[in-house]
Parts: sequence; structure tokens; C-alpha cells
Amino acid sequence: MHAVTITAPGGPEQLTWQEVPTPVPAPDEVLVRVAAAGVNRADLMQRQGHYPPPPGAPEWPGLEVSGVIEALGSEVAGWQVGQRVAALVDGGGYATHAAVPATQLFTVPSGMGLVEAAALPEAVCTVWSNLVGAAHLTAGQTVLVHGGAGGVGTVAVQVAVALGARVLVTAGSQERVDACVALGAAAGFVYRTTDGSSFTEALPGLVQEQTDGRGADVILDVVGAAYLDANLRSLATGGRLVVIGMQKGTRAELDLGRLLTQRASVVGTTLRARPRSEKAAIVAAVREHVWPMLEDGRLRPVVHAEVPMRDASRAHELMDSGAVLGKVLLVT
Amino acid sequence: MHAVTITAPGGPEQLTWQEVPTPVPAPDEVLVRVAAAGVNRADLMQRQGHYPPPPGAPEWPGLEVSGVIEALGSEVAGWQVGQRVAALVDGGGYATHAAVPATQLFTVPSGMGLVEAAALPEAVCTVWSNLVGAAHLTAGQTVLVHGGAGGVGTVAVQVAVALGARVLVTAGSQERVDACVALGAAAGFVYRTTDGSSFTEALPGLVQEQTDGRGADVILDVVGAAYLDANLRSLATGGRLVVIGMQKGTRAELDLGRLLTQRASVVGTTLRARPRSEKAAIVAAVREHVWPMLEDGRLRPVVHAEVPMRDASRAHELMDSGAVLGKVLLVT
Repeated sequence: MHAVTITAPGGPEQLTWQEVPTPVPAPDEVLVRVAAAGVNRADLMQRQGHYPPPPGAPEWPGLEVSGVIEALGSEVAGWQVGQRVAALVDGGGYATHAAVPATQLFTVPSGMGLVEAAALPEAVCTVWSNLVGAAHLTAGQTVLVHGGAGGVGTVAVQVAVALGARVLVTAGSQERVDACVALGAAAGFVYRTTDGSSFTEALPGLVQEQTDGRGADVILDVVGAAYLDANLRSLATGGRLVVIGMQKGTRAELDLGRLLTQRASVVGTTLRARPRSEKAAIVAAVREHVWPMLEDGRLRPVVHAEVPMRDASRAHELMDSGAVLGKVLLVT
Repeated sequence: MHAVTITAPGGPEQLTWQEVPTPVPAPDEVLVRVAAAGVNRADLMQRQGHYPPPPGAPEWPGLEVSGVIEALGSEVAGWQVGQRVAALVDGGGYATHAAVPATQLFTVPSGMGLVEAAALPEAVCTVWSNLVGAAHLTAGQTVLVHGGAGGVGTVAVQVAVALGARVLVTAGSQERVDACVALGAAAGFVYRTTDGSSFTEALPGLVQEQTDGRGADVILDVVGAAYLDANLRSLATGGRLVVIGMQKGTRAELDLGRLLTQRASVVGTTLRARPRSEKAAIVAAVREHVWPMLEDGRLRPVVHAEVPMRDASRAHELMDSGAVLGKVLLVT
């Protein structure tokens, strides 16, 4: 089979389409003939050498795929050869074939294209495990989604709206904010300022304004250190800040006095590093709670571009441009 | 009636025993003739002018009392004049009488002295709302209790042991560690070093050693900034750090990279500032889950000293000495 391998840590040009051995599914895995793989920011970090794959996973990047089941491991029950699936993988999604634990498979809803289904697994599992699992978001609460127009953000907005929450977003342009509003967000803030003012200084006031002075009950953050203090100042009493990315720094001063006064919490999570048992539990919850949103149209994948998988370097360049709205998919 | 008032923000000498108007219970409150009031570190902060009482509470300090119900508000049901009670109060416990919402009352277990019951309300509510409410401590997990020999610590150790958790503590001397072990702690660490070495540098290694390299699932912290990084490095994957005090600093650098890698959380809470509805819910949970531990002896209040209430300044001096094991009570 073929896969997109990383020749050496570095830029997009390090991604090479080459022949590698086809994986053999373990007894509890299925072999998926890949139709498409989603591109995630973690793949860019892996390409740069900052995010090694977990033990046992293929060396090539890719955390989610869609495709057709081609073979079943000896212990797999409830799945059939030929079935259309999407899957969360521990690594190795950028390939024509991937071995996937059966506990990490989703059926592709009828009416959904096989390729676009690749936009879902990582984002829906990330969103559900964080908004509901870590942050206990409930109907009537307000959630602030940073990077609302991104791959995770577009799913977070729709899932939160479906849960009955009020959604605020940040995004890089008014056009991207508008896209989030079209997905159901109540309001959004452009983080790129043009007048030299500090967005992090302004953020708490903007959030207070949109919440009658209460602040956000939940914040889903991919920015990290640069936003930590502004996030904390934007939280409501009892609010939960969930940090799932560190695009701007990993260390920042935490104001414990504010944390105590607001009875707030800061949670950090990652999906990829979780043991398979935890991934299985997340996938099971997503099947139960998020999949119905896909079936009835409350949630739809937002796909910015489909790029041939052998041109993965172009897809990574696109991600670096900051202009991607939703997901970029690699199509075999 | 008489109360211990604060003449001006300052040292223990500012506490004055003087006559004040007896509070009139609101329709949902009872009037308690106070037998004893517990001394909490928050009272010392209030005396210094750093912790003003919430709106509507008396100006004099005191967060918990025991005594006898002397009068019932018009809407109170289920309580009787003459009943022996302990109570969580929003303020004003250092007095011969206190008005208490009925939702913040506990019955005094048979066999327990009325005075020693004053050692319980604030500590058990703090411990339950944090170890179970905020941190979801369960049987088989390991909890590290900083200041294990203190008023909250001695209750935290016993409640955690009763829940089936493994308890580690820190304390200021080997004698105090031994007292925690006598209460059920598995091991403890003396935080006062005599060889010039850094305790916070050593702590993560000590905790790893006691947990087969896993780290603590939950840490209950009263130290704040000075321990933040060491606490984070002492947590297990999925661990929860609950900060309930800031005895050494309010701002410290947070390593978000570590927070994400460990899928950990940092939670800040206070009890006093919560609205009465939340206090009522905590009290109800404590009545259901902690009170049986008192009835069958798994939990007992640890009282260091009983001081006449009019000598409250002496009690505060005692607290400042760092030598108090468990609680100091003010007896009317």
C-alpha cells in the first residue's frame, strides 16, 4: 500500500508518498481501505518532530479516516466487510489502508458522502470529550469557542448549539466569525486587531458584554499560554476552561486568587495519548449522543478542501496559511 | 448578647468581647444559642482585613458553631427548640447567639459532646465539596492532603480513608505526620527541611515513590502559588489539583504542556462565598455521606484546644504559632 511518510522533521516538503507494508489487523481490529483522511494540527506538529506517534502506531501521520472495511480481525463482531465507516486512529491515517480497533469505528450516516465522513472522528471525539466529558456543558450555559472556524471549532459550535448552549466564538476575520454565526453561534470576536490594541485585554469585556456580566461557563481553548489570563477573566463563577491546544505558548502565570474567587477550573486534555479503553468509551458516547445530530442534520462536517493524498504537502501548506474554514481532507 | 468583634484590621489584639444586638432569625432561619465556635484560617484573614464578610452576614468572624436551637423562624420545619445542632454560618459565629439558615444545620450525633461538634461544619463541608464534589475522589485512588494535621486536613484524611482512598500527607513535623498516620494516612512528608534542600523539588519524587510512579489522583492544597508546579508534577494522569487556600502566594507559572500531557485539572474553590442554595446542597450531601462516618466512629473531630470565647485573641495567637493539631474551639 502507499502512505504519506515524513522523510525528516521539517516543513511540508518533507511529506513523501511512498510504498510501505500494508498493516495486518490485530484480532480486535479491522483493516479499512481508506477513502479519505482528515488533516489535524497535530499532524503538522508530528511533521515538525514535536509529536511522536504513540508506541505501536504507524510512523506516518493521520488521526482519522473514512473508508470501507476490507478485512476483520478474528475477534471482531458486529462489523462487516464492505461496510462504510469513519474511524479514530492512533496514527497512520495518511495511507491507503489503516488498521483500526473496532471500538474506534463509526458507521457513516446514510446520505453522507464517504469522503466527507473523514472530517468527523477526531473533531467530534475531541468536542464531546471536552465540552461534555471535561466541562459538563449543559443547556442554557454559555460556551466560548476559540478558533470557532477551524476543524474542531466548527464541530464545537454545532454540537454546543445542539446541546442548547449559547455559543460565542473567536476567529481570525469577520468572514470567519460570520461563518460561525451561520452555524448557530450567537456572536463572535475577531482576534486579529488592526489598530494595535490588545485582543486579550479586550476579550473579558467582550464576553461580559455578551453574557450580561456573567462571563462564559465554559471556554474551549486551542491557544494556550497567551490566552490563559484573559480566559480566566472571561469565565463565569464556577466556569471551566478546557485547554486542548497550545498554539501560542505552553507556560503562563495563573492567578490562583481569581481561580478561587470564581471557583473556576483549568483542565488540560489530549485525545491521542489516551489509552484505547478511554477512546472506546468516548467513541461509544459519541455514537450515542453526537451521531443522531448527524442523522437529523443538526451537525454537518464543514470541509474546506479535498486534496489528493499524495499531495499532502499542499494540504499542510494550506493549514499553515490560516485560511482554512473547517477541515482539509486527503483523498486517496 | 456578646460577640467577638474586630476593632480595626490588625493582629489578634484587635479582637474584642463586647455587647452587640442579638440577631433576629429570618423566616427560613433558626436562632442558635452558641456552645462553641470553630476557628478557621479565614477568620485570621478577616481579622487582618483581607476577607470581608459576605453581604448580610454579621461583621464579627466565625464560620461554624455548635449549640442549641433557641427559636425558629416562621417557615422552618423539621427542627425543634432545644435540639443540639452544629451549623455552617455565613459569618458571625464568634458570638453567644447566631442566626442560621435551617438548610445549614446538622444534628449533633448522640455520644458526641456539644462543644466538639463545633469543629465539624466548615471542615466536613470543605472536604466533601472538594474531595468528592470537585475532585471526584473514589475508592482505590491516592489523595495527597497538604497540611494533613490541620483543621481541614485531619478531617480530609479520615474522610478519604473512609471512602477507601489511599492518603498521603504533608505536615510541619514528623510528630504531625505521625498524627496523620494514626488517623489512617499511609505515609507523610515533613515539609520543613533542615538541610537547606527544597521541599517542592523533592515532593514529586516522594509522591512517585509512594505510588509506584503513578502520582496522586487528587491533591488537596492550601498552600497555593509556592506549590503549584510541584503539585502538578506530583499528579497522576487524569489527576485533579484542588486549591482551597493560598497560604504561600496567589500567582504562579502554570505549565500547560504538562497539564495537557497529564490530562490534569486545577480547580479553585471557596466555601464561604457560595450562594446559600449551593451551601444547602453541600450540607445535604454531608448529612447523607459524612454524618454516618461520625455515627460509627470512622470520623472524629480532632480538637487541639478549647479557649474561652472572650479570649479569642489567644486562640488566634495559637493558630499563628503553627503548632495546632486539628481545631481550636472558642467556648462560650
